[in-house]
Amino acid sequence: MTVGELVHEMKECGVLGAGKIGRAAELAAEMFGGKDYTVFLTMAGPMVPGGMRRIVGDLINQGYVKVVVSTGANMVHDIVEALGYKHSVGTFLAEDKELRAKDIGRIGDIYIEQKAFRSLEEWMHKTLENIPEEKRRHISTAELLFELGKEIQDPESILAIAAKKRVPIISPAFVDSIAGFHLWMFGQDKKIGLDPILDVNKLMDKVYDAKKAGIIILGGGWPKHFALFANTFREGVDCAIQITMDRPEPGGLSGATLEEAISWGKVKPGGKSVTVICDATIAFPLVVAAALESLGKIH
Amino acid sequence: MTVGELVHEMKECGVLGAGKIGRAAELAAEMFGGKDYTVFLTMAGPMVPGGMRRIVGDLINQGYVKVVVSTGANMVHDIVEALGYKHSVGTFLAEDKELRAKDIGRIGDIYIEQKAFRSLEEWMHKTLENIPEEKRRHISTAELLFELGKEIQDPESILAIAAKKRVPIISPAFVDSIAGFHLWMFGQDKKIGLDPILDVNKLMDKVYDAKKAGIIILGGGWPKHFALFANTFREGVDCAIQITMDRPEPGGLSGATLEEAISWGKVKPGGKSVTVICDATIAFPLVVAAALESLGKIH
Amino acid sequence: MTVGELVHEMKECGVLGAGKIGRAAELAAEMFGGKDYTVFLTMAGPMVPGGMRRIVGDLINQGYVKVVVSTGANMVHDIVEALGYKHSVGTFLAEDKELRAKDIGRIGDIYIEQKAFRSLEEWMHKTLENIPEEKRRHISTAELLFELGKEIQDPESILAIAAKKRVPIISPAFVDSIAGFHLWMFGQDKKIGLDPILDVNKLMDKVYDAKKAGIIILGGGWPKHFALFANTFREGVDCAIQITMDRPEPGGLSGATLEEAISWGKVKPGGKSVTVICDATIAFPLVVAAALESLGKIH
Amino acid sequence: MTVGELVHEMKECGVLGAGKIGRAAELAAEMFGGKDYTVFLTMAGPMVPGGMRRIVGDLINQGYVKVVVSTGANMVHDIVEALGYKHSVGTFLAEDKELRAKDIGRIGDIYIEQKAFRSLEEWMHKTLENIPEEKRRHISTAELLFELGKEIQDPESILAIAAKKRVPIISPAFVDSIAGFHLWMFGQDKKIGLDPILDVNKLMDKVYDAKKAGIIILGGGWPKHFALFANTFREGVDCAIQITMDRPEPGGLSGATLEEAISWGKVKPGGKSVTVICDATIAFPLVVAAALESLGKIH
Repeated sequence: MTVGELVHEMKECGVLGAGKIGRAAELAAEMFGGKDYTVFLTMAGPMVPGGMRRIVGDLINQGYVKVVVSTGANMVHDIVEALGYKHSVGTFLAEDKELRAKDIGRIGDIYIEQKAFRSLEEWMHKTLENIPEEKRRHISTAELLFELGKEIQDPESILAIAAKKRVPIISPAFVDSIAGFHLWMFGQDKKIGLDPILDVNKLMDKVYDAKKAGIIILGGGWPKHFALFANTFREGVDCAIQITMDRPEPGGLSGATLEEAISWGKVKPGGKSVTVICDATIAFPLVVAAALESLGKIH
Repeated sequence: MTVGELVHEMKECGVLGAGKIGRAAELAAEMFGGKDYTVFLTMAGPMVPGGMRRIVGDLINQGYVKVVVSTGANMVHDIVEALGYKHSVGTFLAEDKELRAKDIGRIGDIYIEQKAFRSLEEWMHKTLENIPEEKRRHISTAELLFELGKEIQDPESILAIAAKKRVPIISPAFVDSIAGFHLWMFGQDKKIGLDPILDVNKLMDKVYDAKKAGIIILGGGWPKHFALFANTFREGVDCAIQITMDRPEPGGLSGATLEEAISWGKVKPGGKSVTVICDATIAFPLVVAAALESLGKIH
Repeated sequence: MTVGELVHEMKECGVLGAGKIGRAAELAAEMFGGKDYTVFLTMAGPMVPGGMRRIVGDLINQGYVKVVVSTGANMVHDIVEALGYKHSVGTFLAEDKELRAKDIGRIGDIYIEQKAFRSLEEWMHKTLENIPEEKRRHISTAELLFELGKEIQDPESILAIAAKKRVPIISPAFVDSIAGFHLWMFGQDKKIGLDPILDVNKLMDKVYDAKKAGIIILGGGWPKHFALFANTFREGVDCAIQITMDRPEPGGLSGATLEEAISWGKVKPGGKSVTVICDATIAFPLVVAAALESLGKIH
Repeated sequence: MTVGELVHEMKECGVLGAGKIGRAAELAAEMFGGKDYTVFLTMAGPMVPGGMRRIVGDLINQGYVKVVVSTGANMVHDIVEALGYKHSVGTFLAEDKELRAKDIGRIGDIYIEQKAFRSLEEWMHKTLENIPEEKRRHISTAELLFELGKEIQDPESILAIAAKKRVPIISPAFVDSIAGFHLWMFGQDKKIGLDPILDVNKLMDKVYDAKKAGIIILGGGWPKHFALFANTFREGVDCAIQITMDRPEPGGLSGATLEEAISWGKVKPGGKSVTVICDATIAFPLVVAAALESLGKIH
């Protein structure tokens, strides 16, 4: 049984979680298959550490995703993998004091050696120095991430692929990440100035240029808000998929429904949307594989 | 890409939800493949209305599952489908007063016509009458469900398949269901007496006979407790998979971890277990399909 | 600041969790204050181990709650406390294999010595023997729990208070509990037969007699369904409060909304209801204290 | 019964949600009462729309909170309230297309008129113009929010109080908010440049100056990460309370445990921490009121 066949049965079932997966695959196929769709992918949560790095890289490489809005953390983890450090399988039931003593950081049941981030700091410093001062003294995160991406050798790196394909990775909250603090440290002696207002320009260009706008939201967080709010300037996205484990009752944005988004003009009243309540590392590969299979692309 | 291949990649990833799906498929294959495993399947939540009817029926039919502990509700929905009523796709965003007026009951985003339950009542009455009074005046739910299953024509009915394969469906809380109340109504004029203590006998026989005990828990609820507690009499199950969306922090049994179960002797200290935090209508088909594929069985 | 004053501010705020707490206190006051209300309290989850024993006992003792539908587990924990065993503060981050070795069972972050259940077994055996065989060979759980309650000395025992006040505690799924298995063991040599169909009678009497029906649902589970379904025979409860941490999207009954309940005739279309998404050990004392304060009763 | 008395009983109970509330009140009292504590408050989610505005303002005004890290959204809602617009009680079960047509935005069950944001835009424009160009062409969000706070008349405004008390409100992801986009629009004709790297300076000053560092995390999100990560430079906070409805299993930062934080050096191995799984609009007022009561301060 292929993934597409399983997901097709889920679509036929049509209810509960299965129904949502089926619908999401359908909408993803529409967004990926439609030449007039500009697809925005937003990432929050441990997407890269959680194994989504290849899928996201492929989606950018094959032109399905045109804009990425991501937390800095995911880019940090992308770079450390490019530097040769692997995330390894740990456990939620860890002795965290021991991990601290062993210089290992835990993300759920994922372990990463802290020395990966020391290597990252060196690499960041070196790479930042190579950006002309004139440029880096007032730079958007998109431009910064493009500069970083150009320097990465690893062909599986999201940043490298995005730089090659000229797909912007926009991360206005980048300073809130390990690499963001590296920027701060760099800035103690050298000139660097990040300006996320410039990122709004970059994002708005994509929003205005889009014939149809589609969005795939992984996790939620500020990337969800940033990309959706930008799209209010075109009366909302035409198509939206969100995959989250957050719930709406506390009122936070991450768990907010895509129906609520209509009230803000973030999703068109006539738009199509679906929320899949599921761990993204389960739902996203399932939905993407099924969508690409239905479009006749081998995954 | 086959389901097995996708799940294999999830297993290789090894972390977060994907890692759990991968591990669950591995353990399911072990339980289904091992001749010495007695597999207990527990069901709570809308498994039958949610589309799991065929998968469960197949697992019983092909001998993978040897004991079922289920809420009465799932059996009720199994019978109404056998009587020709279909669960249909509705919406969570329903106008429930309207549904009431239209005589439709809602389960999440699933709709079912109330007249299905009126047909059920007639069928129950007729079928109960055909059970000799001597038997039905003091009967276990397992025996009752066997008697009901023998009368069902639908080859896809879980009850019918279980009756044919002599796989007990044990439901001590059966009275808490629409059909349970039908028993009560029947009992207004005729003799009927349900005794769930007899069900303990039936369940304990299976527990004692098992060389190795495996359990697959869908949803949680009292079936989870009943089956796990019974297994404390053999120092715990050897292998356990639970698929739930409940969380452990409120302390309830449904969200309780399989590690906590060790403290009760419900899972052997050396046993293998995994909890998949996921909607069962997504995770269960995924895990079963992958497990059967790895065993070389076409699904 | 009194609890009532805080909850009043939450009511004034009116939104999100605070708004729900405020509304729940308002409805609880209406149900407790109204002479024509029959209040059904349903309990699932670790209410007794979690510290709710005194509050529930008081509500029964003071006549606010007229019917209890509870899991057997909560009654088991009530009895072991009456036998002098205390639930103690443990941790979710336990080494469960060690707890097993130390003969301690864990419920979330609550520990209880297993020997409490061995004492329970002795007490159950002794107490069951004192019930005339004629009675116990075909007994409802409500009748059984009444008989047990009469034998309990502890004035804080829910069972004892309920027996004294003639408030039925109905537990058709009682066999799914440690004490339920004690019944089974007792039944190996002596006559005992539980018949939950008789419990339906008991519950239905209360439903039919109620002028107005109110329900407070703690946790969910089968008690929620049993009590709500019984009330479909009077077109639904007039007033409902549910406190749960479960969510609706997986379609299970525990997380189902009280709006969905309207489609089944479980809640009157014109009824008042509120769902508080919160741990019951936080929300229930808050709501009850505020409600009683607003009624002028010292808590 | 006072709030403090209720929470004291929860502390005595010591388990499940009640136990966490009790512990959180204890730690909050320690942080508020201790002269050597620098308390960082992080806010994500609908804290201001959800009614937490006054509590937060008071905590800043009375010197209990020394640093705030907040999403821009919460500051936006603070300003619109200062401009005279009220958040009103709506419903989760809204017809969002109708709300859109009526120019109302929904946040959970909270409604706010969109015209509030048009007023905000005017006010932002006016206020930004009054900031000398030299300053606003390269400004931190903390400095910007200070400038905005100085212009707000409403004595209950968090921004106004913070400006008066010189408590920094740090919001490096500010551009991801309605006001953030107003900055962008302002920047189409006028000079403005936000630099969140400067915010790191501000935050790090507070981290380095702290004798003891305490943190109260509402909701999670990037503010949680930013404040905790900054504290890795002092080997972690000494005391931490987080109130969230997110769960750890998907691996995201918002639901991550404070134990996991130890592995990153975000919380000292010997530090004290508690996570309350609860809606912040229920837990935060409860915890703060109880803490202040135990310190002898009338709330």
